[in-house]
Amino acid sequence: MHKYLLCFVFSISFFVCTAQNTITGFTQENTKKQFTLEKAYEAKLNAKNLDQWMQKMSAEPHWVGTKYGLENAEWIEKQFKSWGYDTRIETYQVLFPYPTVRLLELTAPTAYQAKLNAVPVEGDEFTQQGDALLPSYNAFSTDGDVTAELVFVNYGIPKDYEELEKLGVEVKGKIVIAKYQGSWRGIKPKLAAEKGAIGCIIYSDPQDDGYVAGDVYPKGAFKNKTGVQRGSVMDMPTYPGDVLTPGYAATIDAKRLDRKDAPTITKIPVLPISYEDAQPLLEALDGTMAPESWRGGLPITYHIGPGPAKVHLKLAFDWKLTPAHNVIATMKGTEFPDQWVMRGNHHDAWVHGANDPISGMVALMEEARAIGELAKKGDRPKRTLIYCAWDAEEPGLIGSTEWVEDHQAELQQKVVAYINTDGNGRGFLEVGGSHTLQKMVGEVADAVTDPQRGVSVKERSNAFDMVKGGKGEFSISALGSGSDYTPFIQHAGIASLNLGYDGESSGGEYHTIYDTYPHYKRFKDPEFAYGVALANTAGRITLRLANADLLPFEFEQWHNTVSGYLDEIMKSCDQMREEVAKHNQMVDKNVFELAADPTLPFKKPAKKEEIPYLDFTPLQNEMVALKSSTEKFGAADVSKLTLEQRNKINQKLRSAEQVLTSSVGLPRRPWYKHQIYAPGFYTGYGVKTLPGVREAIEQKDWKEAQEQIAVLTETLKRFNAHILEIDKLL
Amino acid sequence: MHKYLLCFVFSISFFVCTAQNTITGFTQENTKKQFTLEKAYEAKLNAKNLDQWMQKMSAEPHWVGTKYGLENAEWIEKQFKSWGYDTRIETYQVLFPYPTVRLLELTAPTAYQAKLNAVPVEGDEFTQQGDALLPSYNAFSTDGDVTAELVFVNYGIPKDYEELEKLGVEVKGKIVIAKYQGSWRGIKPKLAAEKGAIGCIIYSDPQDDGYVAGDVYPKGAFKNKTGVQRGSVMDMPTYPGDVLTPGYAATIDAKRLDRKDAPTITKIPVLPISYEDAQPLLEALDGTMAPESWRGGLPITYHIGPGPAKVHLKLAFDWKLTPAHNVIATMKGTEFPDQWVMRGNHHDAWVHGANDPISGMVALMEEARAIGELAKKGDRPKRTLIYCAWDAEEPGLIGSTEWVEDHQAELQQKVVAYINTDGNGRGFLEVGGSHTLQKMVGEVADAVTDPQRGVSVKERSNAFDMVKGGKGEFSISALGSGSDYTPFIQHAGIASLNLGYDGESSGGEYHTIYDTYPHYKRFKDPEFAYGVALANTAGRITLRLANADLLPFEFEQWHNTVSGYLDEIMKSCDQMREEVAKHNQMVDKNVFELAADPTLPFKKPAKKEEIPYLDFTPLQNEMVALKSSTEKFGAADVSKLTLEQRNKINQKLRSAEQVLTSSVGLPRRPWYKHQIYAPGFYTGYGVKTLPGVREAIEQKDWKEAQEQIAVLTETLKRFNAHILEIDKLL
Repeated sequence: MHKYLLCFVFSISFFVCTAQNTITGFTQENTKKQFTLEKAYEAKLNAKNLDQWMQKMSAEPHWVGTKYGLENAEWIEKQFKSWGYDTRIETYQVLFPYPTVRLLELTAPTAYQAKLNAVPVEGDEFTQQGDALLPSYNAFSTDGDVTAELVFVNYGIPKDYEELEKLGVEVKGKIVIAKYQGSWRGIKPKLAAEKGAIGCIIYSDPQDDGYVAGDVYPKGAFKNKTGVQRGSVMDMPTYPGDVLTPGYAATIDAKRLDRKDAPTITKIPVLPISYEDAQPLLEALDGTMAPESWRGGLPITYHIGPGPAKVHLKLAFDWKLTPAHNVIATMKGTEFPDQWVMRGNHHDAWVHGANDPISGMVALMEEARAIGELAKKGDRPKRTLIYCAWDAEEPGLIGSTEWVEDHQAELQQKVVAYINTDGNGRGFLEVGGSHTLQKMVGEVADAVTDPQRGVSVKERSNAFDMVKGGKGEFSISALGSGSDYTPFIQHAGIASLNLGYDGESSGGEYHTIYDTYPHYKRFKDPEFAYGVALANTAGRITLRLANADLLPFEFEQWHNTVSGYLDEIMKSCDQMREEVAKHNQMVDKNVFELAADPTLPFKKPAKKEEIPYLDFTPLQNEMVALKSSTEKFGAADVSKLTLEQRNKINQKLRSAEQVLTSSVGLPRRPWYKHQIYAPGFYTGYGVKTLPGVREAIEQKDWKEAQEQIAVLTETLKRFNAHILEIDKLL
Repeated sequence: MHKYLLCFVFSISFFVCTAQNTITGFTQENTKKQFTLEKAYEAKLNAKNLDQWMQKMSAEPHWVGTKYGLENAEWIEKQFKSWGYDTRIETYQVLFPYPTVRLLELTAPTAYQAKLNAVPVEGDEFTQQGDALLPSYNAFSTDGDVTAELVFVNYGIPKDYEELEKLGVEVKGKIVIAKYQGSWRGIKPKLAAEKGAIGCIIYSDPQDDGYVAGDVYPKGAFKNKTGVQRGSVMDMPTYPGDVLTPGYAATIDAKRLDRKDAPTITKIPVLPISYEDAQPLLEALDGTMAPESWRGGLPITYHIGPGPAKVHLKLAFDWKLTPAHNVIATMKGTEFPDQWVMRGNHHDAWVHGANDPISGMVALMEEARAIGELAKKGDRPKRTLIYCAWDAEEPGLIGSTEWVEDHQAELQQKVVAYINTDGNGRGFLEVGGSHTLQKMVGEVADAVTDPQRGVSVKERSNAFDMVKGGKGEFSISALGSGSDYTPFIQHAGIASLNLGYDGESSGGEYHTIYDTYPHYKRFKDPEFAYGVALANTAGRITLRLANADLLPFEFEQWHNTVSGYLDEIMKSCDQMREEVAKHNQMVDKNVFELAADPTLPFKKPAKKEEIPYLDFTPLQNEMVALKSSTEKFGAADVSKLTLEQRNKINQKLRSAEQVLTSSVGLPRRPWYKHQIYAPGFYTGYGVKTLPGVREAIEQKDWKEAQEQIAVLTETLKRFNAHILEIDKLL
């Protein structure tokens, strides 16, 4: 039923928008004013700025703690100051490991020493900066020196270990080699260690972002044989940010954990390598053939092992406290200075980071510059704007997390919403975040014109969805993790959005030495047209949040979406039940053994625990209650409300997202407070919606599932009470 | 509804079988006798014979016209004679091309001359026979000398050309390179020529049966970099058999077409190559990237072209009449000598053909030997058995087709059924054929024990189906083409079966110099246990057909199956209609263009012709009528019928399959008479059921579709009348 409702809501909003009568949160009169303002804003955006700033900021490697990183922070601060913002740099002292020993060698049945070195590329001077380039490694791998037989584990995610179990292959005491992708990279060493492996190698298979995906750099955008993806492997699904100061700010004199007690450093050493280095290792494996879906794009027969390939992996790091510099720029609001609209993008990169993060950073800066210009001419926003350039995002969202932990109480009181951006390219508008903002985002997407096709970015995004087989209805996705919104939404319960353009600028440069200005100019967004589109989109969202009469939150689309999540979970329970029943029947009839090839390894599957019926009725009833309360608010007419009413309602609207958090947080990871969205404990960046309930079911912990249903019901009850209080103010 | 019925029917038959009360077509008393006979038969089967005979027959290459081919035929005849059969060799003079010039070179942007040569393999002396090995080529390619830009067309099947159309790539005047698989190989040059290409190269991609699929020969069973699949490309979906004598026997003095008028020789030259030879060609292509699903297992980025790769292909053949020797061995029946049960397997191979066809041939011979022994001891079958060893199957089912065309009238009068076998290996029983025989085959599959798992081959086959997600219900598939049953069932309308074991013996040796005895022993059926299982299965089927009181045809399972085909076609019409409506709506809204990347080639799709509603009611009504007539026959009790009744009914049962043919044949290919099963005009071996109606719909020829509905209705009416006549005799 919720789908029908969703359509209906969209039709209404579409009508309202095209008629340009009013936009969410604005009176008719102020809608006109806002349109005029946004038109003036859009006219000020200039692609040349983005281009020049990218050249400046990505000229040298600038990971956290580098000289160039500090130069960038100071330069960014200077720009904001020149545009009329109050600025400051807030610095934290965070643990950051730099690799001092990286050794990987095949010792049997033949010998091979991994090169661990990407080659400079003709025509891209940035790749020729030699020692200035950060060696390829995974930050927050533990030190280690291990030698063992190798096992190929596909992507190294839970279902791969289920498959290994079926094939009777164990990784205990072995070193695993996993492909990048399929999950956030940190899941691979985490799971491998849980299964008893003593080391982990991660490589980029050419099928995923190498020559199978497209021509390789420098002919094309994809990963050549020497490219290596760097990246953090800290256990971010437990908590992100500084590993030694969980839940509080890494100020210079903060009390710190002992490094050996830091739960988010990996348990086993892990190293990323290129496909050139991976091929000899994989080729040396024998034993069970890899299942068809595991096989990659190397010209070899993929075997699982264990052995006869044997490898020696030795890693050591210089573990030291490093300053992380966040740039904070504020423009005080004219009417509601204590209501903050926040924007952020990180400035640190793994190497040059032209795409990640500079392409998003320059769009944010152009947005701030244009708004600054408007402000100078008298069009200053009603609410306070705070622009942030985060440091140390790459090693684990560290700069933003420490800052949020530092200012949490004030933020929870004052912030209306946090809007995040990161890498950006040619393509389609993609937005994730709080569904209470979905309606407003849809209206903005209606107002921004696609630079290539001349229609609205919403129409283009809907067209893309239809061609892929969807219904062509604009929606925003739920946020897992992977950028600086995580501390805001999932820890502090601040309504957040993450947005960018993507889909026509894929490549293999991510976190390699090839993410440079020449690469970006050729393959990502040559004219910076989508950089301007991002500034246009994020800027309009920011300005609407800043100037709205009634804050542009809306709960009916939220209700439809959350109802969908609940349906999904209930259906998946039913499906699991049927599958287990069928599986057990097949075990009883010995079907698996009869069907198996007796010459191949086979482990007779055990019967599975039957799936009980969980009582979802408390949640269902609460969703019914929420339907009527959210509908009542949806029918409100902003122009009929007094200023006093609006102010009271706005206060409630601002804090609504926090009501969706629980102070105790999620089981086994109390840092994560949000009850609707969380990164998956075993997916990493990938979101789990209604995470307490969903993950308990996925882990087949029925007691916890029923408990989490109660916890979520309480959360929804509080949320409903909150909406009812708003309704009373209408 | 038919699915429910199917279950019901199966439950009944299962009950009957396990109770071993009676088997289809036998009285209770004769069921016992038959079981005793089959037990004695099974006891005589000896794996050693199969092993020795394979060594003998696959010792040297023996394609049609070779000295060793004739030696094999004469040796086979001698064996049959020694087992008590009347034997003869029937020889036809058939056109067979032998390659005299094979040249393929890349001329731009770099130069490469294709080696066109598979390498000898250590440990397999057969691969070292040098010039005695048949050069790799495609039989019935036309002569040609062409030079043009290259275009990669994936598998070169209709949907690939639809994709090329979308991408705006034309093959007119070009040479195409297509992967093997995805269709029967002859479709690739046929379609390419229809689209205007002037040459065609076919290669085996390592993803399909090379190193991606498994370890390559000699380490494993799969295709190494030099292996090339030979094979016929004559237009068999138009007619198989001798290209110069369509529809009649290629006797020495037959009137023959001029070669230039032979419609089944390709219009453009075509050559198969290895992946070693394909790689430089594919690597030299640029332009549009191949869609993701097109990319194979070579370590390159797959582009479509056209060009800059340019190739020169030159082929010439020695076209001459060649004798094809069919061995025919007869054992006259004791009670019904004019009712013939036929068995066949071809003896010619492309090279040594240990698997294809010798593994099937030796099983057929062991079956014939064991039955011969029983006959000598007095257990001679009631009906006449005819065992056939066909020649010239590989170039286009030529030996069997000429023989059937030669003896058609007598065969149509006398043959009860034709049982075909061909290559065989370890794995699961797979049966295709006339669904009037499905029930009997299911009962036999219940009686044969799987050599590896000790349960019935039916239970094992059902287990395999369940593990793949099926319901685990035994059924036989519909026959397209690809072996010698085609002239019997699809031309002469003789009920046929094709059977073999497969699924645990995959490899890349098919039609290469690596299909040898050492390869077979290591990777296919090392103990010849499944060769014995095949002899056991086919022998029991043969003996049941030979000794049944009432011929073991059954029509309810046939009715369920054909109802299923009709449902499928009607549903696919509805689906096509919805898809076209959606597509046209999207074209109207310009969705495709809006979603497309403006930097990539894109051709705006045109609106499609809307799918009309076809009137299927005549067919539906006829299926209702058939339901009651077939049920009445199904309820008959054989033990209550007099001998006279049985004889009259048997005569009708024997000719039932012929009633399913139409004398005018299918549109544009009158040689194909059967109205239920045909090889697809654009799939080759792949079957099209209810082909007249289905292919007209697929080709969107609505007038022809409605005409073919009428033709099929008439056929079903005649079939119903035939069943009603049988019912009257009950």
